[in-house]
Amino acid sequence: MKILIIGGVAGGASAAARARRLNEDATIIMFERGPYVSFANCGLPYHIGGDIKDRENLILQSPESFLARFNVDVRVNNEVLSIDRQSKAVTVSHLTTGETYQESYDYLILSPGASPVVPPIPGIANPLTFSLRNIPDMDNIIQVIGNKNVKHATVVGGGFIGLEMMEAFHQLGINTTLVEMAHQVMTPIDKEMAAFAHQEIRQHGIDLRLGVALSSAHHDVEEKRLVLTLNNGETLNTELLIMAIGVRPENHLAKSAGLTIGKLGGIQTNKHMQTNDPSIFAVGDAVEVEDFVIKSPTLVPLAGPANRQGRMAADNIMGRSEQYQGTQGTAICKIFDLAVASTGKNEKQLLEQALPYEKVYVHGASHASYYPGAQTVSFKLLFNKSSGKIYGAQAVGKKGVDKRIDIIAVAQRAGMTVDQLQHLELTYAPPYGSAKDIINQAAFVATNIIKGT
Amino acid sequence: MKILIIGGVAGGASAAARARRLNEDATIIMFERGPYVSFANCGLPYHIGGDIKDRENLILQSPESFLARFNVDVRVNNEVLSIDRQSKAVTVSHLTTGETYQESYDYLILSPGASPVVPPIPGIANPLTFSLRNIPDMDNIIQVIGNKNVKHATVVGGGFIGLEMMEAFHQLGINTTLVEMAHQVMTPIDKEMAAFAHQEIRQHGIDLRLGVALSSAHHDVEEKRLVLTLNNGETLNTELLIMAIGVRPENHLAKSAGLTIGKLGGIQTNKHMQTNDPSIFAVGDAVEVEDFVIKSPTLVPLAGPANRQGRMAADNIMGRSEQYQGTQGTAICKIFDLAVASTGKNEKQLLEQALPYEKVYVHGASHASYYPGAQTVSFKLLFNKSSGKIYGAQAVGKKGVDKRIDIIAVAQRAGMTVDQLQHLELTYAPPYGSAKDIINQAAFVATNIIKGT
Ligand SMILES: Cc1cc2nc3c(=O)[nH]c(=O)nc-3n(C[C@H](O)[C@H](O)[C@H](O)COP(=O)(O)OP(=O)(O)OC[C@H]3O[C@@H](n4cnc5c(N)ncnc54)[C@H](O)[C@@H]3O)c2cc1C
Ligand SMILES: Cc1cc2nc3c(=O)[nH]c(=O)nc-3n(C[C@H](O)[C@H](O)[C@H](O)COP(=O)(O)OP(=O)(O)OC[C@H]3O[C@@H](n4cnc5c(N)ncnc54)[C@H](O)[C@@H]3O)c2cc1C
Ligand SMILES: CC(C)(COP(=O)(O)OP(=O)(O)OC[C@H]1O[C@@H](n2cnc3c(N)ncnc32)[C@H](O)[C@@H]1OP(=O)(O)O)[C@@H](O)C(=O)NCCC(=O)NCCS
Ligand SMILES: CC(C)(COP(=O)(O)OP(=O)(O)OC[C@H]1O[C@@H](n2cnc3c(N)ncnc32)[C@H](O)[C@@H]1OP(=O)(O)O)[C@@H](O)C(=O)NCCC(=O)NCCS
Repeated sequence: MKILIIGGVAGGASAAARARRLNEDATIIMFERGPYVSFANCGLPYHIGGDIKDRENLILQSPESFLARFNVDVRVNNEVLSIDRQSKAVTVSHLTTGETYQESYDYLILSPGASPVVPPIPGIANPLTFSLRNIPDMDNIIQVIGNKNVKHATVVGGGFIGLEMMEAFHQLGINTTLVEMAHQVMTPIDKEMAAFAHQEIRQHGIDLRLGVALSSAHHDVEEKRLVLTLNNGETLNTELLIMAIGVRPENHLAKSAGLTIGKLGGIQTNKHMQTNDPSIFAVGDAVEVEDFVIKSPTLVPLAGPANRQGRMAADNIMGRSEQYQGTQGTAICKIFDLAVASTGKNEKQLLEQALPYEKVYVHGASHASYYPGAQTVSFKLLFNKSSGKIYGAQAVGKKGVDKRIDIIAVAQRAGMTVDQLQHLELTYAPPYGSAKDIINQAAFVATNIIKGT
Repeated sequence: MKILIIGGVAGGASAAARARRLNEDATIIMFERGPYVSFANCGLPYHIGGDIKDRENLILQSPESFLARFNVDVRVNNEVLSIDRQSKAVTVSHLTTGETYQESYDYLILSPGASPVVPPIPGIANPLTFSLRNIPDMDNIIQVIGNKNVKHATVVGGGFIGLEMMEAFHQLGINTTLVEMAHQVMTPIDKEMAAFAHQEIRQHGIDLRLGVALSSAHHDVEEKRLVLTLNNGETLNTELLIMAIGVRPENHLAKSAGLTIGKLGGIQTNKHMQTNDPSIFAVGDAVEVEDFVIKSPTLVPLAGPANRQGRMAADNIMGRSEQYQGTQGTAICKIFDLAVASTGKNEKQLLEQALPYEKVYVHGASHASYYPGAQTVSFKLLFNKSSGKIYGAQAVGKKGVDKRIDIIAVAQRAGMTVDQLQHLELTYAPPYGSAKDIINQAAFVATNIIKGT
């Protein structure tokens, strides 16, 4: 059996490793356009900011180690240009030699990821503007910071990558402006919860501009800076611009090969992560998945789903019948001392879907308040009043936020109701929790609403 | 409606508060033998050790605040001596005046707790030996430490209270011996997991003696110390002795009143927390509950269950029909820098019950290993190989232990299988987790075992 994998990072590398563990004999070739595979995308902003000191720590496997450990033929700097489904072969360009060649397959796994959206803003193509997806992007940003002694940077986009870059710049002592078109950062959470983040961001001296968009950039070569114009007419001088307004599935290879693309632009698969061509699987940021709550297609470009889907594609190729069970979109972001996290649907989405929801807020201590170090966790729970089913939850605070959202993520996936949440028996000793945890409290309040007491 | 509550701490106070919130008109009287209600039992060792500086922080409500906030008549220093089920009245002794009186009830809630086991060891009744259950116990211990300038203390019992006292003494600069009859501390976890705790304890210079028991104590009044003899013949000089070998349900009131007592010595109730007398409910450390996993009666003296049962007893008296859904025994203990936690059944218990189990161990990073500050979490998962149902889990480490056990506690309560655990979508950003969390990894390994790959 011969398996080709396109993309050598989260989904692709996981698929390769798993395929090898399940089958010692298969020929496995992994193509990666860039110079690195198996790197920690999620760590890139933290190396820029200096938290992760050693660049090498970001690179988990090399082509050599992949060969030694997994007997996988890893071809970096090799871009797959097209897929010929008829003959079951791909055409590959070796980017360093310029050579083009073909490789046949029995099974093909697509994990090409998603690329940063860079809208056609006048002047945006300039040497001081970057987006951040991979190691070379990171290296370039670090180089500009070092060489140009950057004093001011601007980040456009208040999603998690934008926020992480904002923090990285702040940590380097660079004055930073964050521009976000929406009236809040972190759109997975609702606005009143994002307010905590806004406060945290402003307290750190960030120039946060909500409800405005970048309309043009002008590279002032003499002054070695950019002059940015916003859609409210304001201008801004900056020495480095990061575009982080979102990502878009890399669907062109799949599209050219005639694979079905969904309405949102992601590659369509069935629950086995199989495209409409039974020999071709697709995973990760490039695919549309089923939303766990509302069951419609969605795009969730996150590492957990990509890793698990990659593993599952390998499983299914190797004859297991594993089904992907939908994505909740569980996510978390560090914003200075705060953690901001969510799972499932938020209130905005429930309103859009016209789903009948109730909500409760609990502001509780991360652990027993009489034990030192407790911090407030602000927690929001959304649920269906008649069925008691959990729609989603959001939490913000300095400690214990990940735990609370994980608890809800598990409960939601298990189909628990808020009534059942009341009975959760969570770890309690003063340094870790409370006899009635925030989650129990939220369940009490929610059940009170349902039962009308 | 007139409700009497016996015991004014976790179960009792929770019942009183809830009863009031559900019914504005009921007469609610809460009797407490001791001088305090609503105190944080769980915080007592931490005040002794100095982590909780302010003694007042341990006392969450006073009789006055309870009256003002909840309109509950709280009678401290009032011990209920007997229950007359026929006439539906209790006899109470006012301990400060010596006066005895009667009080009638429509409903009675028993939350008398559990008292420390002090075995009839020769010489154990001496002024340097204490157990720790309430504020006066704590005050006495603090007084002895202060007055006698204690240089060496001994703790008998390696359960969570014993371990917390050991740490408190260590923090005060007191040389400490911990004596435990079993070959491990923290019996809810298995021995190989407890080994991490043993190492942590010894690294802190504690004289840890496993597999030995205290056989006698001699009070050397002149030297102001105790001479302890162990069952291996060794002797030990110490200036303060804490007995923390476990607790036993306070069942005598219930027993004398002819309420059914279970085989383990706890008061028996149905799922509504109702005793065999429909007017009498019982909750907390004094009752036997159903083990969530094996469905047999068990004693789990922990604050979470006590609080929730107290609330539920009030619910049921007020006409809701709430059912207690069994206790998993989710527990956690801080041992210096380590957290040790578990939920459900351990391997010893599964062996005893002759249940067919499999186990997996995963040693993973508390968050992405390339981001600073990650610590190893050692995690053990026990499950049924044919059904995939979770029997229990244990975890030890410096960070993220509470979260991992909470996740399993939720999953187990929801009836999830290890196959389903694979799909858990947990919060991931480098400071908080991993794209494939320890829990996912354990589920992968467990599912591999089940599927035979
Ligand atoms: C800065 C940053 C921070 C992030 N932080 C988090 C986080 O904290 N938590 C989280 O859950 N997620 C985070 N993510 C998202 C996460 O990294 C992605 O969801 C995940 O990597 C997606 O995996 P993938 O395999 O689908 O795509 P990728 O990991 O992007 O890999 C796709 C690879 O395919 C290659 N490729 C594409 N087309 C071809 C072709 N034709 N031929 C050869 N190679 C090709 C690309 O070069 C790319 O390297 C972050 C992403 C970034 C960029
Ligand atoms: C030092 C210590 C540390 C602990 N740490 C933790 C922890 O970290 N996590 C955890 O989950 N649990 C912990 N616990 C256990 C937890 O405190 C108990 O499970 C919980 O308090 C039980 O509640 P209860 O209402 O059943 O009993 P209690 O809280 O003990 O209250 C019972 C009260 O009833 C009173 N009483 C008894 N009989 C009578 C009578 N006849 N008349 C009047 N009053 C009466 C007693 O004086 C007592 O105050 C700890 C306990 C102790 C002692
Ligand atoms: C590095 C990389 C190739 C590793 O892939 P992997 O080998 O599948 O993943 P892991 O190293 O976590 O190992 C998981 C395997 O170990 C097994 N395992 C884990 N703990 C185990 C234990 N205690 N005993 C036995 N097996 C164990 C798991 O079962 C799993 O094997 P399986 O899939 O066959 O069931 C891949 O994760 C990668 O490229 N990551 C970087 C890209 C990325 O994820 N970016 C986004 C996040 S920053
Ligand atoms: C202090 C004590 C009397 C408080 O009891 P309580 O009032 O039931 O508990 P809380 O203060 O946590 O309040 C819980 C109530 O607030 C409600 N609540 C919590 N957050 C809320 C919110 N955001 N909006 C509305 N209601 C909210 C809950 O629904 C619950 O009410 P309900 O039971 O009617 O549903 C009791 O916990 C006690 O005595 N504790 C000390 C003893 C002890 O527990 N020891 C062991 C641990 S150390």
